[in-house]
Amino acid sequence: MDKNFKIIIQYDGGRYQGWQKLGDSTNTIQAKFEAILEKMAGYPVEIHASGRTDAGVHAYGQVANFKIQSTFRSKEVMDYLNQYLPEDIAVVGIEEVSQRFHSRLSAVGKTYRYRVRNSRIPDVFSRKYVFRSEDEFDISLMQKAAQQFVGEHDFKAFTSQKKTKKSTIRTIEEIRIERQQEEIVFTYSGNGFLHHMVRILTGTLLEIGKGNIQPDDIPVIMKSGMREKAGPLVPALGLSLMEVRY
Amino acid sequence: MDKNFKIIIQYDGGRYQGWQKLGDSTNTIQAKFEAILEKMAGYPVEIHASGRTDAGVHAYGQVANFKIQSTFRSKEVMDYLNQYLPEDIAVVGIEEVSQRFHSRLSAVGKTYRYRVRNSRIPDVFSRKYVFRSEDEFDISLMQKAAQQFVGEHDFKAFTSQKKTKKSTIRTIEEIRIERQQEEIVFTYSGNGFLHHMVRILTGTLLEIGKGNIQPDDIPVIMKSGMREKAGPLVPALGLSLMEVRY
Repeated sequence: MDKNFKIIIQYDGGRYQGWQKLGDSTNTIQAKFEAILEKMAGYPVEIHASGRTDAGVHAYGQVANFKIQSTFRSKEVMDYLNQYLPEDIAVVGIEEVSQRFHSRLSAVGKTYRYRVRNSRIPDVFSRKYVFRSEDEFDISLMQKAAQQFVGEHDFKAFTSQKKTKKSTIRTIEEIRIERQQEEIVFTYSGNGFLHHMVRILTGTLLEIGKGNIQPDDIPVIMKSGMREKAGPLVPALGLSLMEVRY
Repeated sequence: MDKNFKIIIQYDGGRYQGWQKLGDSTNTIQAKFEAILEKMAGYPVEIHASGRTDAGVHAYGQVANFKIQSTFRSKEVMDYLNQYLPEDIAVVGIEEVSQRFHSRLSAVGKTYRYRVRNSRIPDVFSRKYVFRSEDEFDISLMQKAAQQFVGEHDFKAFTSQKKTKKSTIRTIEEIRIERQQEEIVFTYSGNGFLHHMVRILTGTLLEIGKGNIQPDDIPVIMKSGMREKAGPLVPALGLSLMEVRY
């Protein structure tokens, strides 16, 4: 009987084309894992993540699972993976779970974080993990405006998703916007997020913070369902998947 | 009349052969600055740091100064430098100072930090800034032992410095050793540090934490002046120059 392993993964997405395998490209996080799992098992093993992350997006707490014929215990599987993974990908947690567990289908919530460095002065050590902007932002205005996204809404205007048949309704549980030294940190928790949704919400909130979009425009943009009415897609490097809840 | 600018510098030392210019090598932090300053001034300009940092060592608060004929104000000089510096070097502070100020000769104290990641589990985001060790360390034993280094001592046994004529007496004001989540963080403040001194002190303290050297051995090692009696030189990547005081 196969064992089903759930793992928690950290990665610095800067070098990768995202989580998901793309044709023959080996430059995705999924491909890195599957190459090692095949070596470990002696046959191809598929790994499922809680969701794709795009090129350049980081993870502190991505969750994935895979089924494998193995006499290895959890700790041994984790050590094996970490031994062969490149240094910008790491397994930071592992447990054997029931056969029914699926990292994407079983997920009930996720938390993403977006970091903006709001300073004229660069910071060398965070440079690969923050979007830099020297503009002035009204934090409390952004905080107030963000509350309009909380709850169940149709986020069609806030996604790059093209498939019109798929539901664009999602529930956001919380949006926190905090100034932390020179950074503005956005934290989004919800039951799921559409393609590019966190980055477009952040781009929209930043426009509100600069006074280019009014908080009262949010319900209008939301109702329109038109992507072009929302704010810009901010760069991938500022985004990290922090946690997946089950 | 030349202006004398004091700048505070951050760098990720991972890619560089250290601060100091070495023959024709352009792969030092000093060489990066001097190339830009020459472009700015139209003639060669020398830059002086508070001290060399070795290959791979980082800085959050290195201080340097240079004299230049310029109508530029401080802010303009800083912006000019940051515009041309590679993204792993940044000027984070600048002021015009008196002609007498010299970043090395005027310095009265420095603080260094050494980070050890003490976990079986790798951390992707700090990987370039920590030395990893899975060994078990007795923190309170290291803390107690470290107090024997505080004060004025001859640190001949704790340096790679070969010039026998130069004084090896230094004063350490404080050594702090703290567990911060999965890390053990060493912070050293003193009036000056010999070549490799912080890394050898850390290597010695880690041996004490593992029980391989006894705290009582410290005065004996110190008195002997013999490098081979002290602990190993720990890797450069864990070390950062945090602050220089004037």
